[in-house]
Amino acid sequence: MTEKQTWSQRFESALHPAIASFNASIGFDIELIEYDITGSQAHAQMLAHTGIISPTEGKQLVAGLEQIRQEYRQGNFQPGIDAEDVHFAVERRLTEIVGDVGKKLHTARSRNDQVGTDTRLYLRDQIQQIKSQLRQFQGVLLDIAEQNLETLIPGYTHLQRAQPLSLAHHLLAYFHMAQRDWERLGDVCRRVNISPLGCGALAGTTFPIDRHYTAELLQFERIYDNSLDGVSDRDFAIEFLCAASLIMVHLSRLSEEIILWASEEFRFVTLKDSCATGSSIMPQKKNPDVPELVRGKTGRVFGHLQAMLVIMKGLPLAYNKDLQEDKEGIFDSVNTVKACLEAMTILLREGLEFRTQRLNEAVTEDFSNATDVADYLAARGVPFREAYNIVGKVVKTSIAAGKLLKDLTLEEWQQIHPAFAADIYKAISPRQVVAARNSYGGTGFEQVSKALIAAREEIRE
Amino acid sequence: MTEKQTWSQRFESALHPAIASFNASIGFDIELIEYDITGSQAHAQMLAHTGIISPTEGKQLVAGLEQIRQEYRQGNFQPGIDAEDVHFAVERRLTEIVGDVGKKLHTARSRNDQVGTDTRLYLRDQIQQIKSQLRQFQGVLLDIAEQNLETLIPGYTHLQRAQPLSLAHHLLAYFHMAQRDWERLGDVCRRVNISPLGCGALAGTTFPIDRHYTAELLQFERIYDNSLDGVSDRDFAIEFLCAASLIMVHLSRLSEEIILWASEEFRFVTLKDSCATGSSIMPQKKNPDVPELVRGKTGRVFGHLQAMLVIMKGLPLAYNKDLQEDKEGIFDSVNTVKACLEAMTILLREGLEFRTQRLNEAVTEDFSNATDVADYLAARGVPFREAYNIVGKVVKTSIAAGKLLKDLTLEEWQQIHPAFAADIYKAISPRQVVAARNSYGGTGFEQVSKALIAAREEIRE
Amino acid sequence: MTEKQTWSQRFESALHPAIASFNASIGFDIELIEYDITGSQAHAQMLAHTGIISPTEGKQLVAGLEQIRQEYRQGNFQPGIDAEDVHFAVERRLTEIVGDVGKKLHTARSRNDQVGTDTRLYLRDQIQQIKSQLRQFQGVLLDIAEQNLETLIPGYTHLQRAQPLSLAHHLLAYFHMAQRDWERLGDVCRRVNISPLGCGALAGTTFPIDRHYTAELLQFERIYDNSLDGVSDRDFAIEFLCAASLIMVHLSRLSEEIILWASEEFRFVTLKDSCATGSSIMPQKKNPDVPELVRGKTGRVFGHLQAMLVIMKGLPLAYNKDLQEDKEGIFDSVNTVKACLEAMTILLREGLEFRTQRLNEAVTEDFSNATDVADYLAARGVPFREAYNIVGKVVKTSIAAGKLLKDLTLEEWQQIHPAFAADIYKAISPRQVVAARNSYGGTGFEQVSKALIAAREEIRE
Amino acid sequence: MTEKQTWSQRFESALHPAIASFNASIGFDIELIEYDITGSQAHAQMLAHTGIISPTEGKQLVAGLEQIRQEYRQGNFQPGIDAEDVHFAVERRLTEIVGDVGKKLHTARSRNDQVGTDTRLYLRDQIQQIKSQLRQFQGVLLDIAEQNLETLIPGYTHLQRAQPLSLAHHLLAYFHMAQRDWERLGDVCRRVNISPLGCGALAGTTFPIDRHYTAELLQFERIYDNSLDGVSDRDFAIEFLCAASLIMVHLSRLSEEIILWASEEFRFVTLKDSCATGSSIMPQKKNPDVPELVRGKTGRVFGHLQAMLVIMKGLPLAYNKDLQEDKEGIFDSVNTVKACLEAMTILLREGLEFRTQRLNEAVTEDFSNATDVADYLAARGVPFREAYNIVGKVVKTSIAAGKLLKDLTLEEWQQIHPAFAADIYKAISPRQVVAARNSYGGTGFEQVSKALIAAREEIRE
Repeated sequence: MTEKQTWSQRFESALHPAIASFNASIGFDIELIEYDITGSQAHAQMLAHTGIISPTEGKQLVAGLEQIRQEYRQGNFQPGIDAEDVHFAVERRLTEIVGDVGKKLHTARSRNDQVGTDTRLYLRDQIQQIKSQLRQFQGVLLDIAEQNLETLIPGYTHLQRAQPLSLAHHLLAYFHMAQRDWERLGDVCRRVNISPLGCGALAGTTFPIDRHYTAELLQFERIYDNSLDGVSDRDFAIEFLCAASLIMVHLSRLSEEIILWASEEFRFVTLKDSCATGSSIMPQKKNPDVPELVRGKTGRVFGHLQAMLVIMKGLPLAYNKDLQEDKEGIFDSVNTVKACLEAMTILLREGLEFRTQRLNEAVTEDFSNATDVADYLAARGVPFREAYNIVGKVVKTSIAAGKLLKDLTLEEWQQIHPAFAADIYKAISPRQVVAARNSYGGTGFEQVSKALIAAREEIRE
Repeated sequence: MTEKQTWSQRFESALHPAIASFNASIGFDIELIEYDITGSQAHAQMLAHTGIISPTEGKQLVAGLEQIRQEYRQGNFQPGIDAEDVHFAVERRLTEIVGDVGKKLHTARSRNDQVGTDTRLYLRDQIQQIKSQLRQFQGVLLDIAEQNLETLIPGYTHLQRAQPLSLAHHLLAYFHMAQRDWERLGDVCRRVNISPLGCGALAGTTFPIDRHYTAELLQFERIYDNSLDGVSDRDFAIEFLCAASLIMVHLSRLSEEIILWASEEFRFVTLKDSCATGSSIMPQKKNPDVPELVRGKTGRVFGHLQAMLVIMKGLPLAYNKDLQEDKEGIFDSVNTVKACLEAMTILLREGLEFRTQRLNEAVTEDFSNATDVADYLAARGVPFREAYNIVGKVVKTSIAAGKLLKDLTLEEWQQIHPAFAADIYKAISPRQVVAARNSYGGTGFEQVSKALIAAREEIRE
Repeated sequence: MTEKQTWSQRFESALHPAIASFNASIGFDIELIEYDITGSQAHAQMLAHTGIISPTEGKQLVAGLEQIRQEYRQGNFQPGIDAEDVHFAVERRLTEIVGDVGKKLHTARSRNDQVGTDTRLYLRDQIQQIKSQLRQFQGVLLDIAEQNLETLIPGYTHLQRAQPLSLAHHLLAYFHMAQRDWERLGDVCRRVNISPLGCGALAGTTFPIDRHYTAELLQFERIYDNSLDGVSDRDFAIEFLCAASLIMVHLSRLSEEIILWASEEFRFVTLKDSCATGSSIMPQKKNPDVPELVRGKTGRVFGHLQAMLVIMKGLPLAYNKDLQEDKEGIFDSVNTVKACLEAMTILLREGLEFRTQRLNEAVTEDFSNATDVADYLAARGVPFREAYNIVGKVVKTSIAAGKLLKDLTLEEWQQIHPAFAADIYKAISPRQVVAARNSYGGTGFEQVSKALIAAREEIRE
Repeated sequence: MTEKQTWSQRFESALHPAIASFNASIGFDIELIEYDITGSQAHAQMLAHTGIISPTEGKQLVAGLEQIRQEYRQGNFQPGIDAEDVHFAVERRLTEIVGDVGKKLHTARSRNDQVGTDTRLYLRDQIQQIKSQLRQFQGVLLDIAEQNLETLIPGYTHLQRAQPLSLAHHLLAYFHMAQRDWERLGDVCRRVNISPLGCGALAGTTFPIDRHYTAELLQFERIYDNSLDGVSDRDFAIEFLCAASLIMVHLSRLSEEIILWASEEFRFVTLKDSCATGSSIMPQKKNPDVPELVRGKTGRVFGHLQAMLVIMKGLPLAYNKDLQEDKEGIFDSVNTVKACLEAMTILLREGLEFRTQRLNEAVTEDFSNATDVADYLAARGVPFREAYNIVGKVVKTSIAAGKLLKDLTLEEWQQIHPAFAADIYKAISPRQVVAARNSYGGTGFEQVSKALIAAREEIRE
């Protein structure tokens, strides 16, 4: 909203109480209070710097605002519904503290650029916090990966066992997703960190303000070059919500896997009491509440992204009240992503144990080494396609006989093809099957070792 | 969660505090408390009715639960985060009140069917409230329509003026949208109003319960025929969110129109101070905050619908913790729809005035009566296509001359075609143009009069 | 668009070719051609019936339209991009066939009510087809369920084994979801099956049409009472897309389960070659492509629902060109739902075999019978809570000893509590555990038998 | 799918025809054919480079693939449904052309990394095209802006006139949105342009491939460091769909404005026949089909974004068939964004004319200069708040008298406050009101002139 009523008139309005309550945002935008104070302090300093107000007035405003910050932190400032929004609540309190000079704070500024500034300061700060949480999440993944380079785990396509893997390699996949999230938030932040302060209601101001000065004080990287764009742009919110949705996609995939792994059928991990709820009568049953909730909360963040897109669709320039609806979705997404990252990090760090024995056994129970038999033959001169056909038949016969490939005798192997020798057993051992995928980025131990070192380096920076 | 720990063991668990907080739902599911109490009272009555507990025990439980309801209403019952969820909070308090018998309440019941029951009771109640609000909204539309049968307003396609309309006819379009919303909620309610109580954790119970008895006490129309389906179905929530989204679609369309109408360019309505915020320095400027916010909040409800669909996608049977995420979206959608309906009803009733003079003038300023000139000729024997060509040329000439059709002299008309007579002026008057659309459902005054009577009848029922 | 140009002028327009192509809908709305013809035939009959055209003209139009239908079915009518949309393509061809009288077809009608009529006729027809497919899907579920009343399968909450179930009971859960889908489509259809024909461009028409006559010919249940509402309502499309989304939710849940069941870890089903792709070298590996694709396609239908909501948000009355965007999403959703239902029905009917032996064994391998031990004690006078504590300890000890409950000797049982007797083994057998859940809707065989009969009855109607 | 059947066995499979058709992607992935060929050529070169195949074989493969490209371009290669997917179609044709060596192409590669490579090559290319289209769109905006520095247009907040603006300033807001789109696509491209080639089915390969070599040939910036991540990552698609959604948000806002501007009420622009459809009988009526369709198509792209998020939610590693569903949404979004950018660029360039006279008049008809009266007084020593109160009263009185501020006589002004002098008329002239907003990024002509130069510079690069 642009042209706020002057104080005296503000409360004369006969706004219908239900409408006043419908319009008010103080119920949720109080979350912005410290960012609002910081933004206003910079604005006050600029007003003094440019001579729009006197240096003394500037100092009074900055100090008064700082006092409100302290009052808020100590729980002594709790504006009610009559305050309408956090911006007005702060200004009103400021005027109580510093007197009439408080009314000068809003000179050369509008609610439109003010709220845009606050939201960006908030989001920039939260993005830093989320990036830091991503680093912790990556750190825990890496800790477990480093301890499990040689632990094997079945690798799946179509949830069918396809190939044994190093568990470290599997976990590093999530490390790299988080790495992209981290980088992406950096990109998003470059478009969050642009100052709209000084764009006014929509068209700039007649006062000789210095937008670069406030931008510098508030550590914005850039400033909006067009005032209409500055007050009506919410791209940065949508981009953030998309990045948040992607974090949730990744966490939901890991959650799905943990839920599978914790099932009676997989038994790849054990959940510990500190992170799972159970049943007094079935002590072995541990409900994976954390990954289930994370998976469920994914929908919530997607929903906020969609909501924000819908809000923006077809809005004419410049500011429209619809934009007030941006905040709750951003706040809830920030809080959801932070809570999920924290819970998953705790779960991985102390709530979940890989059953390495079970895992190492699991990879010996299937035919996911069949390809390596074909490779074995191919390396001994059998044409590849022929090798494939031979192996296909071997597997069929083995299944019929209830045997795995490792259970065949050397005699049986040699009846299949004379090229087989005693080293076939090593060639098809899961460990060798893993080791042999030594292409860059593959699961071969050598590759994974290098990847672990590089990953550790990545998050050390 | 299905198998709740017995009390003594409940607090021995060393659940990580951050995880406990992550899992807890008491922060939002307190909204269900009265429905939880009502559901539990019915369950207790059934337990006594079937002899699973004694009649005295049944009465103790019912009375104890009623006491909690009163304590809650008086603000004396405010469970903290340690209560985990509203269900446990109520049971714990119950046991404080009635002693050990309180622990019998949960016999033959699980959290899964309990929470499903609560949510349905809540939603059924809210749907009734929303239906009642829709009736009020329709009533206000009808009040205005009845007063404006003969007020004309330009009708648009592609936001281009196409045809003058009776304002009553225009407003009735929204009446009918709301009527569909009302009917649709009735359909949704038939699938909300099904009892899952007695489905247990997932498979039913070994106790000789009587599900029909509780269903009758709680006025459910039907009961779930399959226990797995009963505890894991959230169709009813999604259907409701779709119906809520459609209400918002309709309100957003009306909002868009009001925003247009209130603009300097349209000037079809005046917003009053009780429902619009303004500017002390530009008293004529009234920001249509209400319709803007309503339009913006549309995205929010769409987002909740999407979130709920995402939550359900690909969930294996039966209960999964993801389902805990259903509540906040439902609550917020209910609250949003109710607040928007209330605000729009107030706005229409007392915050907005149609500028009937301006409206009646507006319809005389354009060429939206051109079709009626062609009809005039056609009725006088000119082949339709020829009539069209003639009129097209007339309009072109008039535009070039800066005239409207009504400004042509009879002489000019007759130069165009000899069939024109003095009654052409009446034929192309906006009033006649409207009156002539007398097909069923059309804007002709006769039709609209009938439609007004039928509409009034509709909401009288 | 409302007021179509007369033929001669149509091609004079110097519309930019890229814009003409951007505007054209013939690329996709050809799907509506038969519905367009049917609708136009009814309109022509009504024009003759009311005397707006002569009986002979009416017959010529109907016959000409029928000829186009035949030409289309035989592949001899393939309108190009210059036809703009299917409606114009048909009219142009009609005029080629019947001459100038063809131009009378559009009397008292507009593109706006015409396209609305076509879309509703299309959707009504498709809904019937989908309902019929749902019945087939239910039939297959029921066939399998009837053969597997006594086959046991672990029941899950949180993907943790909670309770053995009758496989029939599990499958019936999906039967009931499909039943709701079937009923819901019926409700949706009541709001699809309303005639907008005769609403004109937005305001009705000056011709003495008979809307009830066309509605009856086209078997519409009701007609729109308000012309503005009639041409701009797309609720029916959104409702359908929501119902379609729910079908996909249900199919995605079943898909997820089948994918799990087909995994090496669960081994509950075997996929057959007719419905799964495999690997020549790992013949045991069967990729569950069908359920995976169905799960993936779920997103697609959700996306179309969201798109349609977005399109409608904030559109002023009456018709806007945005509405042209409704079609592709509807068509693709219809095709997706039909293809998925067909593929899943085939998969269940002939592509998937339950491994009943493995299933019956699976339920003996865990502690999901622990609750029944407590029930056993409780039935023998041990207070319930005490019974719970006892059993909790037994399970812990058994796990430590690597035993299941059924492996305990009678002596061991009696050391735990003297109330145990030889019948404990029967009491905790999975079969008895299932049988005991005999509450209405529960998994007890008696209940499930009744449910099977009722289900068969349901789809017989 | 990972382990493709060898050729001979491929067609032995008794896949149910409906299932085969359900699984097949050739119907849409043919769009990737040239990218598939390019990717395969690089792979073949690498196989030769590393000695996995002979140099001759490498050349044969590259040449054979090139022949298929030419056949496709000439319309001589049109694979049918039996080809299943584009990859197989190309390989099959290759083997027809080059014989058995064709079967070696797939050595050390899997469908999973192949399709990932194709999709990224496609998207990288399309992003470049879209960026180029954005530049053209910006160019047209700039052309118009440069011609309209001094054209005034009312500026709005809440769709209420708030402040006159330079039309150039208004248009530059869209220039800057497009600039962010352009930059954002650059960021997205950095995460699109990563090579998954060589990740194999999920775990890498046993062959001594050189992934950096193929990456270089295909001009990828980076390569995936983890094979599991490489084959199952679709972040890049989601990021693109988000960037595409934002482009649509911006276009939908401009569309909304153009639709408003073209209305009878605003009359800010005239649509020309080349870009608007009209009515033969109402030649003045021009339907803004292009911006309406663009606004409608916005929902479509949002829907695809949502669909892709839904597809990815909760997918376990690594490849799942669900991922096949990524393509159609990407293709349709690319095509939609391109078509909308093209149509809007044409519309702006040749289909729309600003009615500058009407615009310049419009800004004189309201009280949006009231703030400048207060500034006038404030600059002459009247305390700001007092000045506000005075002006508020003046406006009220003027409205009552049916006057605008400019219509007040000097005498009247001086009765209001003695500080007013003859220069008040200039101070409140719209031109001066605009000029005075000379803060950085404001609408002051000086600022806008600079902004125009900078913008021109921006797109010259």
